[in-house]
Amino acid sequence: MFKKKNISLAVIRRLPRYLRYVEDLLNHDVLRISSSELSQRMGYTASQVRQDFNNFGGFGQQGYGYSTQVLYENLVKILGLDRNFKMVIVGVGNLGQALANYANFYKKGFRLIGLFDIDPQKVGKTIRDIKIEHIDKLKDFIKKNDVDIGVLCVPADVAQEVADIMVEGGIKGIWNFTAKEIEVKGDVVVENVHLIDSLMVLSYKLNEKLLEKERIK
Amino acid sequence: MFKKKNISLAVIRRLPRYLRYVEDLLNHDVLRISSSELSQRMGYTASQVRQDFNNFGGFGQQGYGYSTQVLYENLVKILGLDRNFKMVIVGVGNLGQALANYANFYKKGFRLIGLFDIDPQKVGKTIRDIKIEHIDKLKDFIKKNDVDIGVLCVPADVAQEVADIMVEGGIKGIWNFTAKEIEVKGDVVVENVHLIDSLMVLSYKLNEKLLEKERIK
Repeated sequence: MFKKKNISLAVIRRLPRYLRYVEDLLNHDVLRISSSELSQRMGYTASQVRQDFNNFGGFGQQGYGYSTQVLYENLVKILGLDRNFKMVIVGVGNLGQALANYANFYKKGFRLIGLFDIDPQKVGKTIRDIKIEHIDKLKDFIKKNDVDIGVLCVPADVAQEVADIMVEGGIKGIWNFTAKEIEVKGDVVVENVHLIDSLMVLSYKLNEKLLEKERIK
Repeated sequence: MFKKKNISLAVIRRLPRYLRYVEDLLNHDVLRISSSELSQRMGYTASQVRQDFNNFGGFGQQGYGYSTQVLYENLVKILGLDRNFKMVIVGVGNLGQALANYANFYKKGFRLIGLFDIDPQKVGKTIRDIKIEHIDKLKDFIKKNDVDIGVLCVPADVAQEVADIMVEGGIKGIWNFTAKEIEVKGDVVVENVHLIDSLMVLSYKLNEKLLEKERIK
């Protein structure tokens, strides 16, 4: 597959959204879609959609539109979803449990193979047939099972410590849900989730509407 | 405060990140920062930072850099964080509980004033001194308390139904954690959280590294 170098992160961050829409089209037996239709549905410009897809060699024929099946297969491949990455969750509090039960991961080929916590009340219990192990066993488990992704759901004050254990075990990527920015050695990939950011975007939009109303008054 | 019209959502989505860094600077008693330093820390170009801030009239003086305190106050105001929006969480499963206990909301001025669920096992229990009420009371509660934000943490198959109740009650914004795209009437603002999107970005980056290694072999 053709692919430009150094594709911007902004483009990458739009790909999951494309995938979601294309899946929706497939589920509704829509086999073909034009860039203008696709862009309308997604709220982008048609030129934006074409530019985004051109990073990966296009996917479409002029005047013909995109085959949803081809789009789907390409997006899955580009996003690495055919890799079936192995994942462990560390910190099985409410968030860790919510993530462990999040069916969308499994549908997208991410395989949860381990759960870890430090709380003796939790160690030994099972979620989705996976036994919660003590964090002492984390490093060896990652090594032995060649785990790809570590999901970090521990309290912020131990985030760096647990991340270090993951890195020592040979983790390839860390999905960080803590409010802490962690530092990693080598070429470990970190993706931070800041839930509050999205709430602030909502807050911005609400504030815009309130300012508008206050101007009209 | 000066502000351009129709600021792009891409700019808005960067503001929480600016805020996080500026807070960090303030916590370390850094009172002033140049656009080039700020951009380096954040991984943007200096020109990007200046362009972003110019949407709101600048904030800085040429050759002088930005006052972190002025930046902070402006970002808080732009993001509407001085509004103290009132919030309810509907669906108190693992995710709803994790969010209810997420201290960052309170720090940012979001006030959780209600929790709702349909499960009789949960109704009547309290989290952070807030009693979980039955969903039957949701509409009236929103009306009576002039609730701004409804956090939607229910199963996907009832997402639209619960969103409708929120809208009927007069909710202003919905923070949607369900995998379902909800439709709302009027000028209700919806912000969708798709946790899987961020995992797919991580997956993309991991796949990039693997492809690189496979090329070298």
